Amino acid sequence: MRVRHLSSRENPVYKRLRSLREGGRSGRESGLMLLEGPHLLSAALAAGQRAELLALRKTWESDEEIRSLVAMADAPELVVMDDSLFRDLSDLVSPPRLLAILGIPERRQGPEAGNCVVLCGIQDPGNAGTILRSAAAAGIGQAVFTKGSVAAWSPRVLRAGQGAHFALRIVETADLAASLSGYAGRIVATVARGGRPPWAIDLTGPVAWLFGSEGAGLPDEATRLADTLVTLPMAAASESLNVAAAAAVCFFEAVRQTEVST
Amino acid sequence: MRVRHLSSRENPVYKRLRSLREGGRSGRESGLMLLEGPHLLSAALAAGQRAELLALRKTWESDEEIRSLVAMADAPELVVMDDSLFRDLSDLVSPPRLLAILGIPERRQGPEAGNCVVLCGIQDPGNAGTILRSAAAAGIGQAVFTKGSVAAWSPRVLRAGQGAHFALRIVETADLAASLSGYAGRIVATVARGGRPPWAIDLTGPVAWLFGSEGAGLPDEATRLADTLVTLPMAAASESLNVAAAAAVCFFEAVRQTEVST
Repeated sequence: MRVRHLSSRENPVYKRLRSLREGGRSGRESGLMLLEGPHLLSAALAAGQRAELLALRKTWESDEEIRSLVAMADAPELVVMDDSLFRDLSDLVSPPRLLAILGIPERRQGPEAGNCVVLCGIQDPGNAGTILRSAAAAGIGQAVFTKGSVAAWSPRVLRAGQGAHFALRIVETADLAASLSGYAGRIVATVARGGRPPWAIDLTGPVAWLFGSEGAGLPDEATRLADTLVTLPMAAASESLNVAAAAAVCFFEAVRQTEVST
Repeated sequence: MRVRHLSSRENPVYKRLRSLREGGRSGRESGLMLLEGPHLLSAALAAGQRAELLALRKTWESDEEIRSLVAMADAPELVVMDDSLFRDLSDLVSPPRLLAILGIPERRQGPEAGNCVVLCGIQDPGNAGTILRSAAAAGIGQAVFTKGSVAAWSPRVLRAGQGAHFALRIVETADLAASLSGYAGRIVATVARGGRPPWAIDLTGPVAWLFGSEGAGLPDEATRLADTLVTLPMAAASESLNVAAAAAVCFFEAVRQTEVST
């Protein structure tokens, strides 16, 4: 196992890490993602992903979890960095114990049959990642990010997703109408008002869930494409829910219906 | 209406704003909160709160929403600040159009009768605020923050709460056992494993919901005090949900049961 020491910010490997850290287009265009910390890397490896590069702190060999993960990952490139360089690659309060570069799984088309969540213009990385996490926990297997949504594989979305990315088939920069044109299931759009409660709808078959950003809501195109509009009934003084909270309620209402019907 | 111009970081009013902006103890000890932006101030005024001070940008008089809010608030102190000073008082990308200082409503004891959410050591301000927002939307009227939880009225919790604070009776730095000792209702603790699905439990009567931090979970004391343990059934590969997402699922399962039973 060849380990290189990295001490300069001018090093091309360091620059690559730095540009992936910014997320957004740089990751999407290069087809690469940057993972922070052992938990995400474990989830990726367990899902059969391969690491192209691991970046480690100087003390990594005294950290048993990291040592076994490095052995398991068997990455072709291993670099060790000074802590000061490490810190600049993360906006976490305590820098992660490891960084990894992996290829983004390419999914050009979809969704296929089965449950699916569609993020229509959601920009907030925390909300996007939390929606993926809830979707995976509820057994939804696919996610579509429409054009104008946050980059699915950016570091902050990955962090909020807590490994959910690797349990999902994710399609990015999708055209909404095109991706849903052949969908075999119920298309449900969640709207702030005017829809029915999710428990008034049969959710036991395949569902594509459409969620919009908190500010703008769903685009008109999304509500036009939908078979059903859903609104969570809310107390009089409340205007809205956090979109990731609303998504979790919807996903687990489907889980409930499936459990009680079997 | 007397308007003072504030141009120095050494001004005592500026220092007061600055210290409240940091949140945490400084706010709790002074009994004051700092609100960012017109939406939160509107929610506070609508709930009958009084503003002690408004801080405005130089251009405030050309902003109709701000002008009418200033008239409605009728605050005893009004200051106008340079944009550079304004920017240092917020970590939002675009500085808010207004800041307001209000007194924190004092609630020394609780919860009283009725539904309630208890945050047991939750530190993340985004999760705490999102839980309050979902609770208020689901018609829950009370929230308890145990010792060791984030400061309920800090700017980041207020921001994530989106006005929910003013629809809730909030008790802070509570001792868990003491606050639940006389509670007339079901005490439900949400745990990562070993509990029943929320839809397997009667949630139509008053419930106190106990949630722990994502890392540590609920303290043993909380599970001992509970009548019922709840766990959301999850897909095999998933370990956990975001705590605010899990809370929303629980709260709206209670809404569903109440709706279908009436």
